[in-house]
Amino acid sequence: MNKKDNILIIGAGLCGSLLALRLAQRGYKVNVYESRPDLRTIDISAGRSINLALSDRGFKALRLAGVAEKAREICIPMYGRLIHDIEGNTFSSNYSGRDNECINSISRGDLNAILLTEAEKHENVSIHFNKKCTSVDIENTIANFKDYHTKEEFSVDAEVIFGTDGSGSVLRKSYYLERKFLFSYSQNYLSHGYKELEIPADKIGNHQISNAHLHIWPRGAYMLIALPNMDGSFTVTLFLSYDEGEYNFDNLTSEEKITAFFETQFPDALKLIPNIKEEFLNNPTGALGTVKCSPWHYKNKTILLGDAAHAIVPFYGQGMNASFEDITIFDAVLEENLGDWETVFKTYEKARKENTDAIADLAIDNFHEMKNHVANPLFKEKRKLEMALEKAFPNEYFSKYSMVTFKEDIPYADAMKKGRAQDKALLNMVADSDFKHTTDLKYLKEILQKVVKETNEILKEDEIAGL
Amino acid sequence: MNKKDNILIIGAGLCGSLLALRLAQRGYKVNVYESRPDLRTIDISAGRSINLALSDRGFKALRLAGVAEKAREICIPMYGRLIHDIEGNTFSSNYSGRDNECINSISRGDLNAILLTEAEKHENVSIHFNKKCTSVDIENTIANFKDYHTKEEFSVDAEVIFGTDGSGSVLRKSYYLERKFLFSYSQNYLSHGYKELEIPADKIGNHQISNAHLHIWPRGAYMLIALPNMDGSFTVTLFLSYDEGEYNFDNLTSEEKITAFFETQFPDALKLIPNIKEEFLNNPTGALGTVKCSPWHYKNKTILLGDAAHAIVPFYGQGMNASFEDITIFDAVLEENLGDWETVFKTYEKARKENTDAIADLAIDNFHEMKNHVANPLFKEKRKLEMALEKAFPNEYFSKYSMVTFKEDIPYADAMKKGRAQDKALLNMVADSDFKHTTDLKYLKEILQKVVKETNEILKEDEIAGL
Repeated sequence: MNKKDNILIIGAGLCGSLLALRLAQRGYKVNVYESRPDLRTIDISAGRSINLALSDRGFKALRLAGVAEKAREICIPMYGRLIHDIEGNTFSSNYSGRDNECINSISRGDLNAILLTEAEKHENVSIHFNKKCTSVDIENTIANFKDYHTKEEFSVDAEVIFGTDGSGSVLRKSYYLERKFLFSYSQNYLSHGYKELEIPADKIGNHQISNAHLHIWPRGAYMLIALPNMDGSFTVTLFLSYDEGEYNFDNLTSEEKITAFFETQFPDALKLIPNIKEEFLNNPTGALGTVKCSPWHYKNKTILLGDAAHAIVPFYGQGMNASFEDITIFDAVLEENLGDWETVFKTYEKARKENTDAIADLAIDNFHEMKNHVANPLFKEKRKLEMALEKAFPNEYFSKYSMVTFKEDIPYADAMKKGRAQDKALLNMVADSDFKHTTDLKYLKEILQKVVKETNEILKEDEIAGL
Repeated sequence: MNKKDNILIIGAGLCGSLLALRLAQRGYKVNVYESRPDLRTIDISAGRSINLALSDRGFKALRLAGVAEKAREICIPMYGRLIHDIEGNTFSSNYSGRDNECINSISRGDLNAILLTEAEKHENVSIHFNKKCTSVDIENTIANFKDYHTKEEFSVDAEVIFGTDGSGSVLRKSYYLERKFLFSYSQNYLSHGYKELEIPADKIGNHQISNAHLHIWPRGAYMLIALPNMDGSFTVTLFLSYDEGEYNFDNLTSEEKITAFFETQFPDALKLIPNIKEEFLNNPTGALGTVKCSPWHYKNKTILLGDAAHAIVPFYGQGMNASFEDITIFDAVLEENLGDWETVFKTYEKARKENTDAIADLAIDNFHEMKNHVANPLFKEKRKLEMALEKAFPNEYFSKYSMVTFKEDIPYADAMKKGRAQDKALLNMVADSDFKHTTDLKYLKEILQKVVKETNEILKEDEIAGL
């Protein structure tokens, strides 16, 4: 491990550009190759994931790299969900009982641009756009590329290769196909796909619905969500089954059917989406996949980070945050001065893998929660009780959602384990109607103690059962 | 769907040959291609999985095809585990509290031979050996083969292709590589590999240790097991980490180290394995992988069955049984006369998938149980209590192991769900020392009622928590 090591990063998306920046700050020489054009010079969003939710784990990594304040400037804080029922009634559900806690809608492209610009300020960083990686020879750390414009094919030889090339990672595919080691690998798709639509700004450029909320239209088998953009618009995402139920992507093929679907299921949203038919028919349908794999590295030669190592579904708003947290953890391992890349890679995966597995599972849980549970009476009661507990005991009680989203120092796996036990305790308490809603502190304190006791009991019983 | 449909089966192992037999009995015209030579004419075991545990789910499928009695003739019943501790003490742990319940050690090759011979008795079955499938064009249902002897390459065009080509399935790989649909796929390896060794028969051809048991030498980080063969020998399997701990496959590379490992860890077994060094160094080290995927079919054209669809680790003794049960379930779907192959394939996967997922997870649980728990006091107490319950209430109480192994009419997923809840109830009761060992029926009845109540409570609470 030497500062003069020739480091190659494949992919200059959110993870790759933050990694390049951080490695540059540590004095490494970094070459970054990106398949797409420079998004600072051309709009390449093409109707896919144009805004994302940035929260505390993401900010922690951005602070480490000194770019948190720049990111903050382009954030739109969202303090809770605003649920739209089928009659057009709305009710809000805060993300936390603590007043200051929120998640932030942010443009993927604008944030990526900030990171690229910051990385390029370092002399030891070179970023090469329009160079598509086609394969990687992992034994000899040679990556093969094709130039998008000239169609020229060329190879880059490096000492270490970082694959931050996203959920369709070419480096990861080389692990699978080269079969040089036992590669545990999974790709799992949900029954649902997604499609992005738009609620434009009003005539004077303002948001037409609350911009302090993440909007949800939960309908059981499908749902619509909307996140605000800085220009007054909202990016709307429809999550719908490919082929099951009365309405699905396979059968919504005519303008009549699309209109009928929105008129009966999302009448209030429909009024806000003027180009619904055009957008529905022209925008691509994206798949919702989870990727897990292990090992992430090959010898002292290559490693996967971010979505390339652990792509997750978007329902916890943690995809980008988890990728950024990879950089926090990787940087902490570098700080240990372990001496060689292989030890760094192994130490990093040992510290990180159970946590990225956990957030992958939590994100799938939230798919079901958002479609269904947010409109389920038991779940609503539970959230109400949790908000009261967080409000009354802001330093003592943290819901699963709060631990995952706002407590960046609790690893995902711990948040999942404790959060699930706590949810189970609460839901069973609510199901037994074993409480009343109140702001009386003495009563709430008793409830809190009961929740803590039950949660610990559940954790203890699971441990004895070896779960 | 037509009896004249030209059906191609890739793979004439246990699953493929039973499938061929059953489809032939139903009147279908079947061509089977197998990469290996005819095992009835040549010994091809090569030190891998030469005996297996046949139990009730397997027998159910064999009865359906009329070959159960032939199989029974080559079975060696095993009524429990015989645990060998490091001092050479042994204690037995029955598989069931009911006297007649056992699992059966059976030769993979001999059973496969029976199935091939039975299948070939049907005019409408042709089996072609030494023809290795190299790829499948799933859209056009054309499979490409290479002849092992002549090296000739040729294609077979079929109306329907069944992939029973095992855990390394070429048909499944074509699904992954052709990317014609969203293919959820996972391959997950344990940290441990395995190696087969042999305890030979004594001079007069008898077994040197009890042939009515499956022998286990559990040592926490690794273990040895042994199953009896008809010729008086035992096939011994060592399960050991590739690269962790003091002893592992990566560092057991010299005769001295191998001997030291067995002398300190398995002294009694070592005395029974005369060719330990030669076998250890020459026999291959196998990987322990779990494969899950979905969908199993492509349109009305192709389908995966057996290990090709769901390879599992061997620790529940259910790999072959699960593959045979595939045939039971597939046959029941055929019996419904659904009219077209695509509907048959979809109906089959819908009925089957959650159950093969469950046995995959249970088999991994048992890896940890066999290495560790069987020597763990809490676990031993629990098994003792369970045996007393099964003995006292043979028609009322069934352990998780009994439901999986002996209750062929309980689907794996139900056995897992109920069995895990029951285990949790029992383990927590044992941990609280909330019982005493006795054969007093009145007292045991109270215990049974308590277990049932706690189990139902656990299931109810999990359901409320959405688990």
